Amino acid sequence: MSDLRHDPLTKRWVIIAPERGDRPGGDHSRTEEKKTPFCPFCPGNEDKTPSEIFALRSSGQPNSGNWSIRVVPNRYPALGIEGKVNRRAEGLYDKMRGVGAHEVIIEGPQHLQHFHQMSVEQTFLVLNTVRQRMIDLERDKRFRHLLLFKNIGQEAGASLEHPHLQLNAFPFTPFEVALELQSSRSYYHEKERCLLCDIADYESKISSHIIVESLYFLAFCPYASRFPFEIMIAPKPDFHKAYFTEIEDLLLQDLAQVIQMVLRKLELALNNPPFNLVLHMAPFFRSRGGETVGEDFHWHLHILPRTTKIAGLELGAEVFVNPVWPETAAKNLREVVIKL
Amino acid sequence: MSDLRHDPLTKRWVIIAPERGDRPGGDHSRTEEKKTPFCPFCPGNEDKTPSEIFALRSSGQPNSGNWSIRVVPNRYPALGIEGKVNRRAEGLYDKMRGVGAHEVIIEGPQHLQHFHQMSVEQTFLVLNTVRQRMIDLERDKRFRHLLLFKNIGQEAGASLEHPHLQLNAFPFTPFEVALELQSSRSYYHEKERCLLCDIADYESKISSHIIVESLYFLAFCPYASRFPFEIMIAPKPDFHKAYFTEIEDLLLQDLAQVIQMVLRKLELALNNPPFNLVLHMAPFFRSRGGETVGEDFHWHLHILPRTTKIAGLELGAEVFVNPVWPETAAKNLREVVIKL
Repeated sequence: MSDLRHDPLTKRWVIIAPERGDRPGGDHSRTEEKKTPFCPFCPGNEDKTPSEIFALRSSGQPNSGNWSIRVVPNRYPALGIEGKVNRRAEGLYDKMRGVGAHEVIIEGPQHLQHFHQMSVEQTFLVLNTVRQRMIDLERDKRFRHLLLFKNIGQEAGASLEHPHLQLNAFPFTPFEVALELQSSRSYYHEKERCLLCDIADYESKISSHIIVESLYFLAFCPYASRFPFEIMIAPKPDFHKAYFTEIEDLLLQDLAQVIQMVLRKLELALNNPPFNLVLHMAPFFRSRGGETVGEDFHWHLHILPRTTKIAGLELGAEVFVNPVWPETAAKNLREVVIKL
Repeated sequence: MSDLRHDPLTKRWVIIAPERGDRPGGDHSRTEEKKTPFCPFCPGNEDKTPSEIFALRSSGQPNSGNWSIRVVPNRYPALGIEGKVNRRAEGLYDKMRGVGAHEVIIEGPQHLQHFHQMSVEQTFLVLNTVRQRMIDLERDKRFRHLLLFKNIGQEAGASLEHPHLQLNAFPFTPFEVALELQSSRSYYHEKERCLLCDIADYESKISSHIIVESLYFLAFCPYASRFPFEIMIAPKPDFHKAYFTEIEDLLLQDLAQVIQMVLRKLELALNNPPFNLVLHMAPFFRSRGGETVGEDFHWHLHILPRTTKIAGLELGAEVFVNPVWPETAAKNLREVVIKL
């Protein structure tokens, strides 16, 4: 069982998960990368993953072949799904039991085809699966937040090549989301407007950071990008929502297309760079002391290309050095021609 | 010239520094690591670095050989030393010119001997040089904070092997320090005591996280360590100071010994792991609106081994997963036998 421990100096919750040391590439002394030739996510190996939580398949039993999307628990979960959270003090410190969900959404049967490289319809189905799994996990009263992310490439921390998204349910609000929430709320209290709505509005007006603007979404390189070619995708102000779970089908279809365009442009511009993708939404209503939310947080996606090293300045001081002007990155990405 | 840009969502200052793209390993498309066989920091190559700011040498001209410690400006500085900071708004956003210092402290003439692998006397001289450079940079009224860090190993972001520390002067407080300062001040206001003094006191009492306890310093694995074998070194409560620049010679000598013990233990325990070292101290008095500081922040060192990958969860949500109990790491490090 893992522990959730609170760092009193920064207020971060840290997951201490000894079981994670067993996963592929999880050794902590400096060794060469292991390449696992066997893929537990490929069709035919359904018995090599924990039993599936959800699948899209034309016919057949659960955990059989013939699926197009499959959701399974992570074999090396950072958090365990069973039991109470048990929040308590430990001397000077604060802890909880490492309770949470850690699901893997296998995007398709093909070993090297990511969700943005498939048909737009399949990308939509993947996003739709994410929404469904989120709506299901939201019911569990132990959890305060849902986090979706994806690692592509070893430098971005991917331990298995086969395209998959990861979905975590946490009994706490992730630190980065808590920071964004704090700024967004203080802005909202001052101006009675959503911070990210104002940013989207302003970016659309100045246009120098825009990569793609669709009917419903804006994809742009943030003004203070931490990484070269960093990208944010957010619903436009008229389609403001705090929760991804509330997104309508029409927007989800548009998002599938925008994600395809943006990620294909990124791959062409930087020759298949490693990157992380993460979805930020508001924490659940119930964790906010009954306060209504909705106006003051704006769900969005971050895409973080991992072509620069994270060194002492970044990790020890949270000072990021980005060698590429966001304006230059946006211009390059705009100019990349792709076919959907 | 680089830009300092403020991220309105998280409040981080980011350095956009196009010149940094030129440094060894600074390309942003995915390529193999370049190994530079030529070392600009080795004796005889003094003309391959910018002119020295400071050096310890027995005899001879500046920028000649025969030195034991040498301080030079970084050839690829993230920030430029010339000009005004020029804080201003840019539409919705906030920026400053990328003004600051970026110095390199070459720890000794030997290509592969780090400051903790030398004589204790040489380690002391390196730390003393750091203190001197900090006291000098502190006089520059444009700066608000000084940050010392060190990268060892490619995975930790080192681009040159030759042992060196890096010292930055910033016109802003680094985000990680600002977070610690916020917690420390709120704790101080509530309890009239320093947070890190209380932590050091508590850790000394429970002893399970302690690695080394000297007369003046405590080295321990933090309760909520983000990384396996993460280490913090802090002055004991009786020797509380907000600024490293105020440290006395006696403590500096003791610190040299503690750093040697701790880093040698770490290298033996994990077979020379890559790691980052960073020193946190309070921002300058003048940046705090004339408020007195000193009681509410406690300078300290973080040592962050880099044997785990930084993936989407860590980078996109600031949720760190550590596969090793800090108690286990501390026990292992305590039990490693070293000779100074």
